[in-house]
Amino acid sequence: MIAAYQKTCQTRVDSKLDELFHAPRPELALIYQAMRYSVINGGKRVRPLLVYAACEALGGNPERADAAACAVELIHAYSLVHDDLPAMDDDDLRRGQPTTHKAFDEASAILAGDGLQSLAFEVLADTVRNPLPAEVRLDMISTLGKAAGPAGMVGGQAIDLGSVGQWLDQGALEIMHRHKTGALIEASVRLGALASGEADSLSLRALQEYAQAVGLAFQVQDDILDVESDTATLGKTQGKDEANHKPTYPALLGLDAAKAYALELRDLALHALRPFGEAAEPLRDLARYIVERRS
Amino acid sequence: MIAAYQKTCQTRVDSKLDELFHAPRPELALIYQAMRYSVINGGKRVRPLLVYAACEALGGNPERADAAACAVELIHAYSLVHDDLPAMDDDDLRRGQPTTHKAFDEASAILAGDGLQSLAFEVLADTVRNPLPAEVRLDMISTLGKAAGPAGMVGGQAIDLGSVGQWLDQGALEIMHRHKTGALIEASVRLGALASGEADSLSLRALQEYAQAVGLAFQVQDDILDVESDTATLGKTQGKDEANHKPTYPALLGLDAAKAYALELRDLALHALRPFGEAAEPLRDLARYIVERRS
Repeated sequence: MIAAYQKTCQTRVDSKLDELFHAPRPELALIYQAMRYSVINGGKRVRPLLVYAACEALGGNPERADAAACAVELIHAYSLVHDDLPAMDDDDLRRGQPTTHKAFDEASAILAGDGLQSLAFEVLADTVRNPLPAEVRLDMISTLGKAAGPAGMVGGQAIDLGSVGQWLDQGALEIMHRHKTGALIEASVRLGALASGEADSLSLRALQEYAQAVGLAFQVQDDILDVESDTATLGKTQGKDEANHKPTYPALLGLDAAKAYALELRDLALHALRPFGEAAEPLRDLARYIVERRS
Repeated sequence: MIAAYQKTCQTRVDSKLDELFHAPRPELALIYQAMRYSVINGGKRVRPLLVYAACEALGGNPERADAAACAVELIHAYSLVHDDLPAMDDDDLRRGQPTTHKAFDEASAILAGDGLQSLAFEVLADTVRNPLPAEVRLDMISTLGKAAGPAGMVGGQAIDLGSVGQWLDQGALEIMHRHKTGALIEASVRLGALASGEADSLSLRALQEYAQAVGLAFQVQDDILDVESDTATLGKTQGKDEANHKPTYPALLGLDAAKAYALELRDLALHALRPFGEAAEPLRDLARYIVERRS
């Protein structure tokens, strides 16, 4: 069951993450508090789950993947802190709690996000926290750097900001999502595979196909849920998205075709996992869960 | 002469930096432009100079230090972009040009800074741009991560923000400067030493002493120049600093004692370099220049 697996991964990575926020001196207490607040927040830890599940799919035990699991979550957490800033999405609440710039202040939120990004790379380079061969650690750092940076997540956010009020076609929409969220999801799966110590180019390629399909399926289903919850609660479809000038798959393809597309992506993800045995079951469960979830 | 050496290092690192800002696809052109604008700006490249000079002091040729020189400048540039934001120092101009959030917009400036930080680590991990042994690259990444992160530069900025309107004593002031600017200066010298391939624990320790003294001397001399330029141009001393509630060495120690302290730090820096021969002359020149400069 994916729920039990998710809980196990969440507990595991949360305890590892919590070790990272001890201020080395009292003058630094506040910045470490702001960073901890931004990370230790009950998040579902989908990206760490992907790291652990990919490591397991190749026969690696979870200890090998702890540093990578922390690193992807630190990058994700920093991106949310900066996304929530007034100059970006200007959100006051996240998961029902004040966002970091509301709980602290804007300057602290900018710095906390910056510090979380440094910490992600520091954790991967650390010989104690990430006791894998040097070449593996370097591959992880390159992977995360590309995925987080301007050719990945940061670039996707820039595309998203630049397309406000514009109508994107499906190709442009997918380019945006592939960068904004897909790059870090792909990196999570690759980091888990590298952590196992058993990755070869064939398995990396198969897992990349899996990750691309899963990342996109996640986005398509998110768009579907937005529409269906609007329909149920407000008696209208697509109004909110159109008002926000935010392109979605149901708006582009129609609701039924969007649902069919999500299922197709799930099948693509499962297909990519054919070379793997029983050990890839958590990855398969996740692909199924993504298109079946109701929230 | 330090001016000629500085110019050589600047030209060298600028040409390497410029290679990093080619957008891999047209949708990403804007974020790459904002990053490039934030970096290619005529900066003096003091940190890259320290990287090259430390590498040279241990007999390494400059090619070995190019990636490290780029990485420290990318971190420095990102910190300036974020420092200039309205929620931080709220500066409209830097080096006489509009700051990144003025030339683009606030969201783009936040993202450009974020992307520059990712890029710094990516460059160090890159086997083509930084063709040094894996263990050396990892040591560089750890060094830069610690220096840039919450226990280093970001922590120092947080201490600085938290001490606005407070009176710091000399100990507290030095803790702030050691983090805010000292950490990256120390890292620059260490990265250069690592790049040479000839660093041992004794030389690393000596260069760290040099870097600590030089970093602090730079700050003390900056404070002195602020006072003396105020005195000359406005006919008053320390008024601006006191109005800003910004503690300075002349305010804490008196102007004459601050000048004596700057010279003492220069001598400490030169003393630390005793084990090194002729090849450390650029590092010595820099230590002398810092306390002699008039702007």
